[in-house]
Amino acid sequence: MNEKPMRPFRGLIPLEEAVPLVMRRIEPIERTEDVPLGKAVGRIVAKGVTADFDVPGFERAAMDGYAVIASDTYGSGQSAPANLKLSGRIYAGGNASFAIEKGCCSQVATGAKLPLCADAVVKVEETETEGVVVSIFKPVYPGQNVSDSKSDMAKGTEALLECDSLSPAKVGVLAALGRSSVSVYGKPRVAIIPTGDEIAKVGSELREGQVYDINSHSLEALVNEAGGEAAVWPITKDDHGTLRQAIADAARDCDMVVLSGGSSVGDRDLLHDLVCELGELVFHGVQIKPGKPTLFGIVNGRPLFGMPGYPTSCLTNGYLFLYPAIKKMARLEPERFRTESAKLSRRVVSTLGRHQIMTVRVERPECGVVAHPVFKESGAITSMAHSDGYIEIPANVDLLEEGDIVKVRLW
Amino acid sequence: MNEKPMRPFRGLIPLEEAVPLVMRRIEPIERTEDVPLGKAVGRIVAKGVTADFDVPGFERAAMDGYAVIASDTYGSGQSAPANLKLSGRIYAGGNASFAIEKGCCSQVATGAKLPLCADAVVKVEETETEGVVVSIFKPVYPGQNVSDSKSDMAKGTEALLECDSLSPAKVGVLAALGRSSVSVYGKPRVAIIPTGDEIAKVGSELREGQVYDINSHSLEALVNEAGGEAAVWPITKDDHGTLRQAIADAARDCDMVVLSGGSSVGDRDLLHDLVCELGELVFHGVQIKPGKPTLFGIVNGRPLFGMPGYPTSCLTNGYLFLYPAIKKMARLEPERFRTESAKLSRRVVSTLGRHQIMTVRVERPECGVVAHPVFKESGAITSMAHSDGYIEIPANVDLLEEGDIVKVRLW
Repeated sequence: MNEKPMRPFRGLIPLEEAVPLVMRRIEPIERTEDVPLGKAVGRIVAKGVTADFDVPGFERAAMDGYAVIASDTYGSGQSAPANLKLSGRIYAGGNASFAIEKGCCSQVATGAKLPLCADAVVKVEETETEGVVVSIFKPVYPGQNVSDSKSDMAKGTEALLECDSLSPAKVGVLAALGRSSVSVYGKPRVAIIPTGDEIAKVGSELREGQVYDINSHSLEALVNEAGGEAAVWPITKDDHGTLRQAIADAARDCDMVVLSGGSSVGDRDLLHDLVCELGELVFHGVQIKPGKPTLFGIVNGRPLFGMPGYPTSCLTNGYLFLYPAIKKMARLEPERFRTESAKLSRRVVSTLGRHQIMTVRVERPECGVVAHPVFKESGAITSMAHSDGYIEIPANVDLLEEGDIVKVRLW
Repeated sequence: MNEKPMRPFRGLIPLEEAVPLVMRRIEPIERTEDVPLGKAVGRIVAKGVTADFDVPGFERAAMDGYAVIASDTYGSGQSAPANLKLSGRIYAGGNASFAIEKGCCSQVATGAKLPLCADAVVKVEETETEGVVVSIFKPVYPGQNVSDSKSDMAKGTEALLECDSLSPAKVGVLAALGRSSVSVYGKPRVAIIPTGDEIAKVGSELREGQVYDINSHSLEALVNEAGGEAAVWPITKDDHGTLRQAIADAARDCDMVVLSGGSSVGDRDLLHDLVCELGELVFHGVQIKPGKPTLFGIVNGRPLFGMPGYPTSCLTNGYLFLYPAIKKMARLEPERFRTESAKLSRRVVSTLGRHQIMTVRVERPECGVVAHPVFKESGAITSMAHSDGYIEIPANVDLLEEGDIVKVRLW
């Protein structure tokens, strides 16, 4: 399965080129699994479902009232009711394996199976009962107030199609057919490999010069939110042999591999070289701020992302690259970010030639929506956590003025 | 905790009154639980989190380059570099417990702790190295290319507030503080009690006059999608003693009780009477189609819904009543249905005095968006499963013409 390394992209490529280069290499998951109905909502149907019997499967009363032979009611009216003999009573789910004879009727509850020979139901409101005599004040035609046996689904109907997303109603369709489980496409398994000596596992003691591992956790949350299944690796040392082994294991066991860290020059080169060695480097370096050192390649046929080590860079690039890639793998609709127009609260300076992602906080005073830039530096996870979304400043724009209208993409 | 029955609402009430009557009685969950970071995304913070140390906690290099004493670089330029002695090398996470002396510098990687006495970093691009001599071609000011020790969070900062919804970035903030778990509000536990002899458990054999239990499964999916935790009861017989016990158990163990079934006159009266007996009936009967027999009450302080037995009626009323109630209990933002304007594909007749919910399929040909009514009958789960959303026809409208513009609320 290993592909030979191709000539890597050198230099930075624009964001508008980088995203399609990724998306072109993402294949939807083919693996399927059976899940019980209780876990099925939001999953994608792997195999169409055909109704193997009629639903409800019998003629049933659509109203509370009396099952009759319609012709017995013809000509009846307020002053000249048809008087029928009450010859039975059928509750929903009750026994209906008897026939009514001409001149007779049977009390039925909504949803109850009609007795044999009955072909219509008279609503209880249009009757009066005394002892075993039921007076009918309005005629019914054959089939009136009756649901036929295929009214919900006829045998052979394609009830669910492959790739349907299972809404609560579609889960209901499976239940109507008596299915207790359903075959769905597997969730993309995404390996997250944190690297570097400068990060420590949450809950442990920090050594000198260390900070806690943030990216594994924020990426894990992002992967799960996008519809994937994150598998977080232990923190991996930045040496050739250890990292090579971790990447090879992850590309064997998972559908996608994400490395976070390797933000220093030496580490970046290490990952770059390893991807060339093990597979194909597609690009390394995007004209985007924050997030320049983002890397994308293919190892063992699996997409591999090298994310910047700084938490904000890592997470914004997660939204730009990982999120849509996971959605496509999972056959889910690409997430539509909600957007909102807002006035910029202050002048913002950007770098020409770099597409800038700037986190903003949104306020909604009476005079309209205002976006406050909250970007601190790419290391500052708080700037992202306290933001409501982000604005983009294209590579050819170096300045936005206070009061400019911007489009905020809300998290 | 049992409240005395109040005078029940008799007769149908309009939808616009029914929804606020429900929402007024819904209280957010007070119960809290600790969850690991990997399960935290989307949950609501129960207790604000304050930073108990500075993050990153030390001065670190914001660039790859050389840590210097800034004043050693003053006056340097392209033609007159400052030549410093290379006296060390610090990797990210490496040992930095040495001082540099005047006239010396230390190589540093991005994210590495600065050595003692150093107060700036010169980018590697502005230097040249020969042996142990580093030539600096541009002066730096104190603090340049250095992240200070509180740059992400200062000790004492309110990092997360109570009721924050945990986004991937907010999960990252917890990780930055070394927390491996977080206290969040409990998910609303919703008991779903299917009732009636006419329904059978999925996977079992159908007896005469039975259909499979659809509502437990579609409601379970809806509850879980809304952010609750569904607990499905076994199918319960429609007799006074059995149903009374099931309701009492559910109202003791869960935060909300939902019954589905009881669509026939007798069963409806049974639930009505039981709710009056065990607690307070708030309303029974809504001017809405489908879904008229919807019931709402309070038992043991817990909201109780009696949903119509027919699958479509049950599920549309689930969206109208249960969904927002669960969101409020879970302290989640009320779901904003996406809406879309569309042209109606055919004339639709409605009933005056009944607010009608009509499921539609949406097509998007070149000439604009078209809504096709797909409503079959309230028993037909397929009509709902094959729809993309619904339109509402107010109680005072009895006719919509082909070509009328309608607002579709998409599932």
